[in-house]
Amino acid sequence: MYERSSVAELAGRLRQEVDRYSPGEKLPSSRDLVETHRVSPVTVSRALAQLAVEGLVVTRPGAGAYRAAPRTAPAAPGDTSWQEVALSADASADQVPRSVDAGGVLATLTAPPPGVIELSGGYLPPNLRPEKALSAALARAGRRPGAWERPPTEGVEELRGWFAREIGGHGGSVSAADVLITAGGQSAITTALRALAAPGAAVLVESPTYPGLLAAARASGLRPVPVPVDTDGVRPALLEGAFRASGARVFICQPLFQNPSGAVLSKERRTAVLDAARQAGAFVVEDDFARQLVHEDAGPLPDTLRSADPDGRVVHLRSLTKVTSPSLRVGALAAHGPVLERLRAVQTVDSFFVSRPLQEAALELVGAPAWPRHLRAVAARLRERREVMLTALAREVPALCVTHAPRGGHNLWLRLPDGTDEDALAGAALRAGVSVAPGRPYFAAEPAARHLRLSFAPAAGDSEIAEGVRRLRTACDEVLA
Amino acid sequence: MYERSSVAELAGRLRQEVDRYSPGEKLPSSRDLVETHRVSPVTVSRALAQLAVEGLVVTRPGAGAYRAAPRTAPAAPGDTSWQEVALSADASADQVPRSVDAGGVLATLTAPPPGVIELSGGYLPPNLRPEKALSAALARAGRRPGAWERPPTEGVEELRGWFAREIGGHGGSVSAADVLITAGGQSAITTALRALAAPGAAVLVESPTYPGLLAAARASGLRPVPVPVDTDGVRPALLEGAFRASGARVFICQPLFQNPSGAVLSKERRTAVLDAARQAGAFVVEDDFARQLVHEDAGPLPDTLRSADPDGRVVHLRSLTKVTSPSLRVGALAAHGPVLERLRAVQTVDSFFVSRPLQEAALELVGAPAWPRHLRAVAARLRERREVMLTALAREVPALCVTHAPRGGHNLWLRLPDGTDEDALAGAALRAGVSVAPGRPYFAAEPAARHLRLSFAPAAGDSEIAEGVRRLRTACDEVLA
Repeated sequence: MYERSSVAELAGRLRQEVDRYSPGEKLPSSRDLVETHRVSPVTVSRALAQLAVEGLVVTRPGAGAYRAAPRTAPAAPGDTSWQEVALSADASADQVPRSVDAGGVLATLTAPPPGVIELSGGYLPPNLRPEKALSAALARAGRRPGAWERPPTEGVEELRGWFAREIGGHGGSVSAADVLITAGGQSAITTALRALAAPGAAVLVESPTYPGLLAAARASGLRPVPVPVDTDGVRPALLEGAFRASGARVFICQPLFQNPSGAVLSKERRTAVLDAARQAGAFVVEDDFARQLVHEDAGPLPDTLRSADPDGRVVHLRSLTKVTSPSLRVGALAAHGPVLERLRAVQTVDSFFVSRPLQEAALELVGAPAWPRHLRAVAARLRERREVMLTALAREVPALCVTHAPRGGHNLWLRLPDGTDEDALAGAALRAGVSVAPGRPYFAAEPAARHLRLSFAPAAGDSEIAEGVRRLRTACDEVLA
Repeated sequence: MYERSSVAELAGRLRQEVDRYSPGEKLPSSRDLVETHRVSPVTVSRALAQLAVEGLVVTRPGAGAYRAAPRTAPAAPGDTSWQEVALSADASADQVPRSVDAGGVLATLTAPPPGVIELSGGYLPPNLRPEKALSAALARAGRRPGAWERPPTEGVEELRGWFAREIGGHGGSVSAADVLITAGGQSAITTALRALAAPGAAVLVESPTYPGLLAAARASGLRPVPVPVDTDGVRPALLEGAFRASGARVFICQPLFQNPSGAVLSKERRTAVLDAARQAGAFVVEDDFARQLVHEDAGPLPDTLRSADPDGRVVHLRSLTKVTSPSLRVGALAAHGPVLERLRAVQTVDSFFVSRPLQEAALELVGAPAWPRHLRAVAARLRERREVMLTALAREVPALCVTHAPRGGHNLWLRLPDGTDEDALAGAALRAGVSVAPGRPYFAAEPAARHLRLSFAPAAGDSEIAEGVRRLRTACDEVLA
């Protein structure tokens, strides 16, 4: 009835034709194939069966033959595609988003390409760092007796005492026993969030706020709920409403020279914030990142929220990194009550403790006679830099509205004309030779306006800041026109 | 109808009597009170109403009066009790346990009281650390140009290259681009777990295993599922079953000189473990913590699981801490495929990066001519110490059964006679002047037998190890008798 050779021949022809059909598409009927190829129905049937075995067609009895879905190629050695499934699928925990977005953090941590002026980062340039004192302190620290022992998990006692005095002020309301040494500010934020809120919980954040906080909250499975800030800090009525609406038991904020807005929480609002937290049975995490970045012309600084809190409501957060070097990864959490044990347990389980020589180096540094001189120099330079940037902005790009001229920190927060494409502007700026931060990553939800954050910390000096703003003008001329 | 004075008088009497009743207990009926106190029903009714206003009784119409639950005292300033609620209640996320148990970790991180011989920790004593080399390396590192700059978030390039060569061996299967520098081994474990599994997910662990792993998994909201280990490592049939039963996509293990059992995964089982993971679409985290703690008499070591894995199945983990100092908090993760980006993102968001001078110090140290000498010295001393401990155990406490005499690492895992109270034994040992680790914290579920872990790393020398075992005998004589 049929010849093996004609089956093979027809299968060969069909094998070539079948690629012209989409997966699931119907092939010509057996009768058509019989006529077209002038073979017997049995030859057609056998050839189709051969292609079905090969996975090229699917035959459905009584309905005909269809182009099969392409078969998955057997994974070649070195094929890591399976990871995409493993990194996403999780039947038992599908309520928590899996991917971790480090984009906003990396944007401020990555050095810009050579020749590009950095107005986007958050660290002091080499000439504002106490580099000689750091090197000397580290060398001494590594030679101290016991330097290579494990330190107490909560930190070296004398360093805890120093942070306690810094945080508590002259009143002495904070003791060394209230302090936990952390590996810088970001680790302190992660530890606080992980200690205070369980995966799936809401956490209230300022809006706008530092993208590293939003990323840390999301990476810990938390839902950041934004509460708008104006020039007097967070708005208390909205904060109360957010506590009620979200059930959050944590509000994390920067009451002093907030990043990015530069806002300082007013005296009346300080009380209102603590009252709102008390009503909600919630903690306030006070990220006091900028207290040592005060400008020369600031006048007396407001007290910490911590100083108005006898009940352990406030978890206070400090870092030495901002005013020294990104690589002196030493910070502190101060808290009072059972929460301290939770913070310590989270840090111990996550990372054990902070390297002892780094802690000893920090202690050497802040105890040296050069330390107050260093702080005064930073205060003077930051004020100068702020003025240089404000002047340059007013001259070069008056269309960008500076929302607030802060007397501390290193950020200016610029409101862009409505409808500006932030990313296009940041991209044009980079092409013009200056890196700036678009505003979008600073918002947990859709922002009401477009912004740009400029930092006057990382540039080498005043003239570089002015030149950076001139380059920004080039970008504005291109994008805002 | 009633006199104000008699109401006040009755209320006064009842106020004194009411304390004799438990909260919720029924007070005498109104009729009884009328008779006992010889007052009118209205007086009784008014007096009870007065006490109800004061919160001392609750009146239920038609049922009578009951002693009220004691009213909460208004919180005095400095009262942190509210924190217990805030740290536990979380309506939105009640599936994830909130408290973090650092007990098992702290037991190995905390130095024992003076005069107590430490047979419980996991770090080398000062005389086995390369302390002079560490101090010199740190001093040089802090003076290198760029030492106080931010490092690349994934780590200093040359150090990544060194780890890549260490992990990949001569085959060169691992490149610097596959390596992420971490702040020691515990941070690497936390980063791997947080990158690979979402809160609520199961993660397979060896049983017994290192308590710091169980704590890290639980603190990240994961459910550790134990898979038993024998002297050839994890049992593959049970591993396959555990993957199926739990839906886990991660198995974390120590194939070389497992902590605490000392087991080395056999060659056949290596293949079976990777096959089981492949079938389950799962990652294997290979914690290769003990490769540099090999003993002089070990012979050639088995290859890493990583070397048999072209598909990015294995996330490999190393630390420099174990063989140097607890304060050189430098380790590495090596991975291949999209998972590397996830690992890097988690670490960046959690803690930014590892201090650059510490990374440079590690690089100085492992590049120095003294480094191979140090490794050889550790290998020789660990072998001696193991033999001293084994001999002392056989002589002093033959009732404790050493399950395995490992040729690497620093742990002996002792099976105790059935019914032994581990905590009583560890407590008696501490009173006798030696710290040992009870076995219970090494199990994710109920163990089949009682154990004790002894470490021959932290003691000052051979004679201290022998004396420690003699003190353990005193404890055994007391508890096992």
